[in-house]
Amino acid sequence: MTATISGATSLTGQMLIAGAPVRGTGKEVRAFDPAAGQPLEPVYQHGDNTHVDAACAAAADAFAQYRATTSEQRAAFLDTIATNIEAVGEALIARAVAESGLPQARITGELGRTTGQLRLFASVLREGSWNGARIDTALPDRTPLPRPDLRQRHIPLGPVAVFSASNFPLAFSVAGGDTASALAAGCPVVVKGHDAHPGTSELVARAVTDAVTTSGLPAGTFSLLFGSGPGLGIALVTDPRIKAVGFTGSRSGGMALVSAAAARPEPIPVYAEMSSINPVFVLDGALKTRGAELGRAFVASLTMGSGQFCTNPGLVIAVDGPGLDTFAAAARDALAGSPATPMLTPTIARSYASGVEALSGAAQLVGRGAPGTSETACHAALFSTDAQTFLASEALQAEVFGSSSLIVRCADFEQMRAVAEGIEGQLTATVHADDSDLDDAGRLLPLLELKAGRILFGGWPTGVEVCHAMVHGGPFPATSDSRSTSVGSQAIERYLRPVCYQDVPAPLLPSAIAEGNPEKLWRRVDGRLTQD
Amino acid sequence: MTATISGATSLTGQMLIAGAPVRGTGKEVRAFDPAAGQPLEPVYQHGDNTHVDAACAAAADAFAQYRATTSEQRAAFLDTIATNIEAVGEALIARAVAESGLPQARITGELGRTTGQLRLFASVLREGSWNGARIDTALPDRTPLPRPDLRQRHIPLGPVAVFSASNFPLAFSVAGGDTASALAAGCPVVVKGHDAHPGTSELVARAVTDAVTTSGLPAGTFSLLFGSGPGLGIALVTDPRIKAVGFTGSRSGGMALVSAAAARPEPIPVYAEMSSINPVFVLDGALKTRGAELGRAFVASLTMGSGQFCTNPGLVIAVDGPGLDTFAAAARDALAGSPATPMLTPTIARSYASGVEALSGAAQLVGRGAPGTSETACHAALFSTDAQTFLASEALQAEVFGSSSLIVRCADFEQMRAVAEGIEGQLTATVHADDSDLDDAGRLLPLLELKAGRILFGGWPTGVEVCHAMVHGGPFPATSDSRSTSVGSQAIERYLRPVCYQDVPAPLLPSAIAEGNPEKLWRRVDGRLTQD
Repeated sequence: MTATISGATSLTGQMLIAGAPVRGTGKEVRAFDPAAGQPLEPVYQHGDNTHVDAACAAAADAFAQYRATTSEQRAAFLDTIATNIEAVGEALIARAVAESGLPQARITGELGRTTGQLRLFASVLREGSWNGARIDTALPDRTPLPRPDLRQRHIPLGPVAVFSASNFPLAFSVAGGDTASALAAGCPVVVKGHDAHPGTSELVARAVTDAVTTSGLPAGTFSLLFGSGPGLGIALVTDPRIKAVGFTGSRSGGMALVSAAAARPEPIPVYAEMSSINPVFVLDGALKTRGAELGRAFVASLTMGSGQFCTNPGLVIAVDGPGLDTFAAAARDALAGSPATPMLTPTIARSYASGVEALSGAAQLVGRGAPGTSETACHAALFSTDAQTFLASEALQAEVFGSSSLIVRCADFEQMRAVAEGIEGQLTATVHADDSDLDDAGRLLPLLELKAGRILFGGWPTGVEVCHAMVHGGPFPATSDSRSTSVGSQAIERYLRPVCYQDVPAPLLPSAIAEGNPEKLWRRVDGRLTQD
Repeated sequence: MTATISGATSLTGQMLIAGAPVRGTGKEVRAFDPAAGQPLEPVYQHGDNTHVDAACAAAADAFAQYRATTSEQRAAFLDTIATNIEAVGEALIARAVAESGLPQARITGELGRTTGQLRLFASVLREGSWNGARIDTALPDRTPLPRPDLRQRHIPLGPVAVFSASNFPLAFSVAGGDTASALAAGCPVVVKGHDAHPGTSELVARAVTDAVTTSGLPAGTFSLLFGSGPGLGIALVTDPRIKAVGFTGSRSGGMALVSAAAARPEPIPVYAEMSSINPVFVLDGALKTRGAELGRAFVASLTMGSGQFCTNPGLVIAVDGPGLDTFAAAARDALAGSPATPMLTPTIARSYASGVEALSGAAQLVGRGAPGTSETACHAALFSTDAQTFLASEALQAEVFGSSSLIVRCADFEQMRAVAEGIEGQLTATVHADDSDLDDAGRLLPLLELKAGRILFGGWPTGVEVCHAMVHGGPFPATSDSRSTSVGSQAIERYLRPVCYQDVPAPLLPSAIAEGNPEKLWRRVDGRLTQD
């Protein structure tokens, strides 16, 4: 019962629980090839509560041994996962392209991003600051009371449940950012794979499982399950052995997990990246000098990947006038010339179409892309409205996942500020400003800081760099926890907590906070950063 | 309508909303002097929703200006609060002693701790690492895509609601750790004062308000309200302008706030420090060589401040045998010689008595302290039970706030480990070990790491040092968020979130992440810590 991809790697249609292939018992799931308009073999099946129990039990069993590994051991493990993924690269790319309908170049890039993330966390582990080492030395002669010896380091929270996203079948999926950061932190991971790309998920899960085995780690360090969000997903989040959750997806899906986690006897942190319309503020000077150019660049960002990005520019805010007219006309023309591209699944395409339908009733149409013929074709759309209408309408602020955007025409700059104050929390906020706009931009910036995790000037929000300074997060409802990021090296912190060691005998001290600094870490000693 | 304390400072019985004294409209509240067995003047009154609205509106108004202050301005502000508190030190100490029944030496020490905390956060601001500055430099020539310039810093979450604790009328109250860390972070603060010490609260609130004025800060930076938890407290937590909550108190009170915050249209973080019984593991070698000495030291920690500490040692776990008998006998004798000391309020004393009553039915009495005659007297109590009974009983794990503790007799070391695995999350876990116990201690330590925020050897948990490495936190139900601490310099992080700046023009960059590092901060540049 196996299917062959590129003649190289066979798929079994099974989940992987602590290293063992297990067939599900529930709903049958087949991936759908949007380009071919055909379902793909093999058939997968959703797991049930016994599979959740088995994966969580194995993860809990693995935790003690896995978290006791050294930073170098976990770094080598992450490197091995990356190498294993590259080893099935051709088959993996073929399968991910078939399952997602995304262009091969994009998936190839995403594979590089995924292995790059794994290696980034390996480097974070080797650098060592993730330990959060702090030492306050004893002051035995202090009066009226001596100070004990106090040391702090960070330890992992425990087994983590990761929910794959549909739109990044590699980088936000089975071995994506959440899995990489949780494994780096020392947390076993149970992934709920996305039904949109089960074959891709199986291939990657096998690469991880092989790395678990060859690295000599306990099998429960990693499992992949398939299942529905409301069923298996909630069972996973409410399992008492799960201690944190990473999620990328819809607002309704994310909030269901947030509520379930909060209602547990022991509530746990949920990092849900949910909903963002990514406002783009175009200031007067920029509009005047390069309105048409900006309109075309905007459409390129809007239609990339059929707009299926958390950071898709779904809102353009500018002062009404000839500059904005030029921008809108150029955008309309560029849109008219942009072909319909496939969306990830028929369900997503239907949901997009109904979102556009809703906007059609509430705003004026500026233009549309070329219509498509297939079931999954994304028929891009651009609308406009005035600021007053926008601010009064909740519907106009709702995310439409796909290539749909809304121009908000403002009477003046003060109204642009009012829009900035009126919107919900966002992953990103973009400003286009010329030198002549700097004063206005400076007055906008403090408002945007309170609304977004990332503020960018002169570009488009759809590129999310994987690095140290990145914040892919932001105030609610962009995420459920604005204190964190799901992209970049800082993501390791979401799965850690601090522990203080008071007068712990030297032979028992973890090496990160041991005397003599054997790992040569940056540590805060008596309040001062030092590598001594 | 003013009352005089030590003839120096008059109390008005009013709340302070954005600098203005306002009389409440609700329930009348008088502090109670447990030593004298008398209520204290003046009468205070609970506020209502209009007061919550006024305080939150003022805090929201103040936020933009307050968060735009420099680190140095906020540091000077915190220093001024400390100086102002010291200026009313004598009157403040007298009032706090009268309201709490705690010894003058303890309150004097707590005043020093409170001003010390304020100055610690001033030093944290001046040191600057709180900014979390990270810079990934642009790579314009990178292929296939250039890398933009990416910078990250931390900004404050917004107005914070702080709930005072009863048991530290200064250090965990109006200008305690939560207020100091939130103000340091750049968050305006609305305090709900504790009914047990309204006069102390008013004096401290005036010291803060004076500092707000003389520092030229917006009046809404600080407000003090009085009110009930379920009424005014919930109104405060669910006000949309409040963006985070700090709380120290009971499990039921904390969980009510956690639930209310999670049910908001925009959920917010709640840092509730709630419940801990602080297990003390006494290993065989230590018991053998100094069982009696440990028993006496244990009782000193147990009865200090009538046991009204979050870190009171409420559980002693050891292997049954002659060593433990010696420990228990010494503890029983020390307890018999320990006088009844007043508890904070009659309500707390009644709650303690009923907790002890419940334990009497479920465990064996080892000994009691001297009985008291007053309404608030704490009649210390020590019980014992076997590990099997303990592990099967939820009631035996419940916190009894006051000088009550329970010895858990284990059959062997493996059963001690089972107890360590079976208990809920704790603020602290203590180990007494001799050199001969090191192997056992090493096997216990990984279990305790998963259960407690602080692990200490050879001491007692009731001292909580204010420093950089301290963790006063821990897994649920010790706190609602184990990723944080409510004591020590790291507490500033709970009120911050990261923001990323991509290609932001140099004139608009915040100084913490500006070119040339004008503040000479430690920053992570391309992954490497540097002060360049």
